[in-house]
Amino acid sequence: MKEIKSIAALANRFSALPGVGKKTALRYAYAVIDLSEQEVDAFCAALKDVKNNVRFCSVCGNFTEGDVCDICASRSCKQICVVAYPKDVLAIEKSGAFGGVYHVLHGTLSPMDDRTPDDLNIKSLIRRLSDAEEVIVATNPDVEGEATAIYLARLIKPFGVKVSRIAQGISMGSELEYADAVTLGQALGRRTEL
Amino acid sequence: MKEIKSIAALANRFSALPGVGKKTALRYAYAVIDLSEQEVDAFCAALKDVKNNVRFCSVCGNFTEGDVCDICASRSCKQICVVAYPKDVLAIEKSGAFGGVYHVLHGTLSPMDDRTPDDLNIKSLIRRLSDAEEVIVATNPDVEGEATAIYLARLIKPFGVKVSRIAQGISMGSELEYADAVTLGQALGRRTEL
Repeated sequence: MKEIKSIAALANRFSALPGVGKKTALRYAYAVIDLSEQEVDAFCAALKDVKNNVRFCSVCGNFTEGDVCDICASRSCKQICVVAYPKDVLAIEKSGAFGGVYHVLHGTLSPMDDRTPDDLNIKSLIRRLSDAEEVIVATNPDVEGEATAIYLARLIKPFGVKVSRIAQGISMGSELEYADAVTLGQALGRRTEL
Repeated sequence: MKEIKSIAALANRFSALPGVGKKTALRYAYAVIDLSEQEVDAFCAALKDVKNNVRFCSVCGNFTEGDVCDICASRSCKQICVVAYPKDVLAIEKSGAFGGVYHVLHGTLSPMDDRTPDDLNIKSLIRRLSDAEEVIVATNPDVEGEATAIYLARLIKPFGVKVSRIAQGISMGSELEYADAVTLGQALGRRTEL
């Protein structure tokens, strides 16, 4: 059976989304047939709205629909939490454990992929340091995230601003038995007194 | 942090797709920001094309862009394979094990959900029987699929057409150890001589 052309074309579009393989894309495309015409129109409008309305906050680099994002506009910037991507902001906000502002680098340093400090949103971070007391580096605990954290610490400390790194250790709810060796080693090495 | 309105709206649209939860929908919406304007336009066009061009084949009820689908137009209709949904046609076609035509019911009988024979694409199946030699019922081996198969067998046999059901048993590559009791029971009961 030849696949139906317009379904194959739509599936192809869906497969551009992260983590969507051929089978899932086809499943999504078939589901679109069951949507009403109004729903399809609304879907298109929503796609275009995101593309047209969403831009980067001129202060922190996070996504926003205005010039400055809601967080930058409303919070004290004594504590700046540096993250690699906008989705990391969302994750930290959901935890409810941080009340300061963010700074989104849009990537991490990676000599392998030829990503240097000039490719990241770092210059505007330096400009924000005059009002800051602490910069918390919340990049992922992998090689690139660590390298980025070390680079930022060296860069920022001369400005007299404290630089800290999110803690690493065993995740809440996980089991020691299944933790990898590096994580276990760090959890032991960075143990805290009770 | 308030979520960005247009991103939340798009995520809402994505979550209407099958198997897409809130987190995945948000991930898709964020990915759209990284698409180019042309790609977003093409995405919209593909969505509308599917909605506007795809209809049901007037013979078998499968999806098609013309009046009669490619399969109905090109194959002998001596053997008709009855399936519940268009995606089942795709699955059987991929196996390459069937060279006849299909008939798509668009559902299965389900007294619980108030789906009666009148809600399924059965009348047009009866009209096709004059040329047919065998009807193979390939609905899922669950309660509704079995009920539908039994109903169709009773309906079709008086027309002098052979009615068969796809075989049930242990799947190729699966392990007996993990097979459920009903499947194992049927695999034993329907054993074939070597």
